[in-house]
Amino acid sequence: MRKVIVRVKGRNYPIYIGWGIFDEFPKVCLSHKIKPHIAIITDTNVANLYLDKLLKILTKSGYKPEPIIVKSGESSKSLSIAMKIYTRLIEINLRRDETIIAFGGGVIGDLAGFVAATFLRGVNLIQFPTTLLAQVDSSIGGKVGINHPLGKNLIGAFHHPAFVFSDVALLKSLPQREITCGLGEVVKYGIIKNKKIFESIENDAEKILKLDPKIITEIVHKSVVVKSTIVEMDEREKKLRMILNFGHTIGHGIEASLNYKKLKHGEAVMLGIVGESFISLKRGLMNEKTFERIKNLICSLGVKFPKKLLDKEKILTHIGYDKKIFSERLNMYLPLGIGKMKFVDDVKFAEFEEAVEFLFNFEKLRQNSK
Amino acid sequence: MRKVIVRVKGRNYPIYIGWGIFDEFPKVCLSHKIKPHIAIITDTNVANLYLDKLLKILTKSGYKPEPIIVKSGESSKSLSIAMKIYTRLIEINLRRDETIIAFGGGVIGDLAGFVAATFLRGVNLIQFPTTLLAQVDSSIGGKVGINHPLGKNLIGAFHHPAFVFSDVALLKSLPQREITCGLGEVVKYGIIKNKKIFESIENDAEKILKLDPKIITEIVHKSVVVKSTIVEMDEREKKLRMILNFGHTIGHGIEASLNYKKLKHGEAVMLGIVGESFISLKRGLMNEKTFERIKNLICSLGVKFPKKLLDKEKILTHIGYDKKIFSERLNMYLPLGIGKMKFVDDVKFAEFEEAVEFLFNFEKLRQNSK
Repeated sequence: MRKVIVRVKGRNYPIYIGWGIFDEFPKVCLSHKIKPHIAIITDTNVANLYLDKLLKILTKSGYKPEPIIVKSGESSKSLSIAMKIYTRLIEINLRRDETIIAFGGGVIGDLAGFVAATFLRGVNLIQFPTTLLAQVDSSIGGKVGINHPLGKNLIGAFHHPAFVFSDVALLKSLPQREITCGLGEVVKYGIIKNKKIFESIENDAEKILKLDPKIITEIVHKSVVVKSTIVEMDEREKKLRMILNFGHTIGHGIEASLNYKKLKHGEAVMLGIVGESFISLKRGLMNEKTFERIKNLICSLGVKFPKKLLDKEKILTHIGYDKKIFSERLNMYLPLGIGKMKFVDDVKFAEFEEAVEFLFNFEKLRQNSK
Repeated sequence: MRKVIVRVKGRNYPIYIGWGIFDEFPKVCLSHKIKPHIAIITDTNVANLYLDKLLKILTKSGYKPEPIIVKSGESSKSLSIAMKIYTRLIEINLRRDETIIAFGGGVIGDLAGFVAATFLRGVNLIQFPTTLLAQVDSSIGGKVGINHPLGKNLIGAFHHPAFVFSDVALLKSLPQREITCGLGEVVKYGIIKNKKIFESIENDAEKILKLDPKIITEIVHKSVVVKSTIVEMDEREKKLRMILNFGHTIGHGIEASLNYKKLKHGEAVMLGIVGESFISLKRGLMNEKTFERIKNLICSLGVKFPKKLLDKEKILTHIGYDKKIFSERLNMYLPLGIGKMKFVDDVKFAEFEEAVEFLFNFEKLRQNSK
């Protein structure tokens, strides 16, 4: 079991990573002095696969877990579902010094994290991510939140967990599409910070997609280090965390335009990575060859741009609503090459229009690259 | 204009207090580098009295204020009203570095503060309290939140304002009942920390109720000092802030049992002060003479215990739901005398039953004391 320490706001918390470490979870809870009465927030998918096992090992170690199960999918990240969870937490009488476990993917981590941040003005939280996306991204950094019909994550808070517990072997039960999605964020880490991650996907794509235990655990570990390093540095330099938004401004616009249906978050982010790299290319910040590498890598992961479902104007409207735009011109990081980014403070809305226009030809590119 | 500095979480923020300082508000905003685009969250009552004036002076100083008006009353402290405000903030495109002004009483401070804490994961907040209760209590300390049908303030966060701005002259437009309510918290400060506040109400009750500018401004200032001192000390000693809950465990039980109708928060707290002092008396922590002083003071402020509307069992059920109870026995501060409290960790539910029972005779006491 590997351990990455995150240092934020004057306190440290660990991220435990390993292949097949599930059974060690209660022991880790005990070592963190987690009180017996705990709420487990999870979704129908994860509950079907792993909830019985989790309840069994926790109960065996003296815990009194109370599961709260929501429907799988982005639509659960809503204020009305949060309200239902608050009600349940009051009914089971969860107290201020007790704990909520977010047991699931990114949606559960964000939703359960937001509830933990706001119930009784904040209760203890454990992130137990079960998807690649959640293990390498959403469970780390304390950002929690829910969606508003007009935009993703517009309602939220910062709430760091007591610890994060990532059993990489859980990924075996994920559909291939979910693995691909998680790799989107991993590609992002390669481009923004660690060239080796990018090259590892270029070289070992097949082994990674087949979840070779050694290679995928290595990839998760490297990704966690990138993410937690940036989260830590951001404590000192506020704007640095924006580097993690790479691919997300356009990605969120696409997701929101589809009402968060049809396309997975990771897929939208990969399309966003191509779009925002295009802005870099057009500005002369990135050369054509690097842009080709990025496009090819993402195409090789099988991402689809569902052109027929999409509406250019809708996407652009939603980019306008994106919370990261906070003045006439957008502040953002753009890639210079693989592993290197530049902060720019003058991206115009017209550049997004061009990039989205370009994405509407992405399907064709994908076919060419095969 | 007086200034009290609150030191929390490594940063300082000021509370401005004065009689008739309204016109200086835009100047203070400018000195705090508040950006031009601001949302003013207020209620129908305050809007009728002061909104035009506020909009006028802000606009004159180059600000672009956008008012968001909700219905007056506790029922606005709900998730559905918060949702409506989020929608409006998105529509007016309020950005992350812009500001929300909470312009109103305690309900508005809590509601607008909660929205500011959670919109875009936190935007800038100014507390501009317009009631005595808000000026001496709810605007200070960063506690923000909304109600759940099963309990008050069960959903919330900590969000400190950029500054608090209290024009005591605004209290002139308050109904007498609201002044009385605010004085409930002031009485609390007298009992928990500053004997002089308590004695000042005993001696100058009439002048205070008539809002003598000098005396009431002095009372507000002294109260703000008590509250902010406790908030600051709580940064080091976590349990200290519980001293501020004096009167609130029983008070919230009473309010919740009435669905937050009929009785004002401050009135419920005053009844709670009597009830919790009764627990002290029964334990032999407080003598009969001090208990009489407390009862007489509160009776002299005209508080009514609406016996016919109340249900003993309901009150006790809601005390059980109260978030401050987090184990079989309650941790709380109980008064030893005027200005002196003691932390106890073994208050039993039965003691609350006795105290509530006692309160059902409060009406009689009130009549006797006249």
